[in-house]
Amino acid sequence: MASSTRSSKRQKTGAETASETGDSLPYKLIYWPSIPGRGEHIRLAFEATGTPYIDVANKTDAGVNAVMAQISDKNIGDDNNPPPLAPPILQHGDDILLSQTPNILAYLGPKLGLVPDVAEDSVGLYHVNALTLTALDGLSNEPHDVHHPIASSAYYEEQKEEALKKAADYRAVRLPKFLGYFERVLSGPASGGGEWLYGGKLTYADLVLFQTVDGVSYAFPKRVGKLKSSGKYDKVFALYERVKALDKVKSYLESDRRLKYSMGIYRHYPELDAED
Amino acid sequence: MASSTRSSKRQKTGAETASETGDSLPYKLIYWPSIPGRGEHIRLAFEATGTPYIDVANKTDAGVNAVMAQISDKNIGDDNNPPPLAPPILQHGDDILLSQTPNILAYLGPKLGLVPDVAEDSVGLYHVNALTLTALDGLSNEPHDVHHPIASSAYYEEQKEEALKKAADYRAVRLPKFLGYFERVLSGPASGGGEWLYGGKLTYADLVLFQTVDGVSYAFPKRVGKLKSSGKYDKVFALYERVKALDKVKSYLESDRRLKYSMGIYRHYPELDAED
Repeated sequence: MASSTRSSKRQKTGAETASETGDSLPYKLIYWPSIPGRGEHIRLAFEATGTPYIDVANKTDAGVNAVMAQISDKNIGDDNNPPPLAPPILQHGDDILLSQTPNILAYLGPKLGLVPDVAEDSVGLYHVNALTLTALDGLSNEPHDVHHPIASSAYYEEQKEEALKKAADYRAVRLPKFLGYFERVLSGPASGGGEWLYGGKLTYADLVLFQTVDGVSYAFPKRVGKLKSSGKYDKVFALYERVKALDKVKSYLESDRRLKYSMGIYRHYPELDAED
Repeated sequence: MASSTRSSKRQKTGAETASETGDSLPYKLIYWPSIPGRGEHIRLAFEATGTPYIDVANKTDAGVNAVMAQISDKNIGDDNNPPPLAPPILQHGDDILLSQTPNILAYLGPKLGLVPDVAEDSVGLYHVNALTLTALDGLSNEPHDVHHPIASSAYYEEQKEEALKKAADYRAVRLPKFLGYFERVLSGPASGGGEWLYGGKLTYADLVLFQTVDGVSYAFPKRVGKLKSSGKYDKVFALYERVKALDKVKSYLESDRRLKYSMGIYRHYPELDAED
């Protein structure tokens, strides 16, 4: 994938031009075709900032093979990049390949203006990263495990009995816990007013919270509806609507680039949902 | 906790002195007392680099209350810091509070010399972060879920039947998958020779892999013994021994600061272990 050696790396920090920092190099997202999945967090970062990118598996002839080649047991990476275990994978220019959703977002954050300015607040990007990790833990990884509590490689139907139990706990304990946590974050002074999670401005943590709330609303419409009507999480749902109404996000959500939920992380099995 | 406002933040990037970058401020780890848990990754970063730190719940009168105050439903954080959902929490000086294990490590990495020099390889810290996230996913979070597959707030005994099923899948499918992945990373050129995960030098990803392999070896001694004897993961187990033999790590492991596994993430339930 990359032919240069480590010493040829062109990425540098400090005050340099976009060209020197590689910010003008093309971005490619390598992720499973046809589902939003974890790749959706990367798409939203690009879409919300109007950043051009190529969604390789959905928009090029490579299709799913682009993913399969990366995650093959035979792939040992290249001089610059360890192999990825799983997508999403970000390719930036010819030489940089990064995996792990929160890691790709941490890399993109400063380049896309989705974290606080480091010169003004050098710790802000770590707060944004922590908020992102927590949203992914409780509102993405756990909802996946609800329908796959025993084995991610087996069918839902093979673990449905256990899924019913885990769903009951998720709806009653875990989902309110995480929504309550983010309500608390939005109530705190570090949010800078309660409209955004951190520092009074949109960051990628807000995009991740939007996407994960959207996902759990699809998977558990009865339970999310009930929690929403309780009034306990008004700031979280207001943030959700605020992100959804951003011009670029709105256009994206109305485009055919926004993929429909199906058999990915967020699945709607009516038997796993209930008001309580 | 912090009395300064956002504009008073003293942390800056670039070429500054340790005092200016805050690297001389005291580090405090706020984590549950008496268990290694996720806090162990933070301890190891400090211990392996000889960095002074205060393990608040274990070494001060505050004890567990230091954790409880942070994760209270009433805590909305302060001007600089959102509230944490859960420990580990790093306090750096008076003003900085960070949560989420991989996030704390990402913050400490450059300060403790546990990531590649950014001036030489500005992408290296993201590779280290990705490797860390993957090790924590498969060799820490999943082993926890093996004994708590349905509800993290319920007792193991209440979900033992499901735990037996999940343990079988973890031993057969997931554990070999993750060990195989790291063997592949160590076989690739970006590892810089196969002794360390990335760039030919110790990074915090190596410390995390050491700790997670140590944990699964405690939890599943029969299965790890069998996998080790297969010879398929020799580079992973050699890295484990290499970290263990580092002078500062060795001294730490022999000290009373190294806590014993008990009822935390890594638990040894004989019924969940087997050679296959």
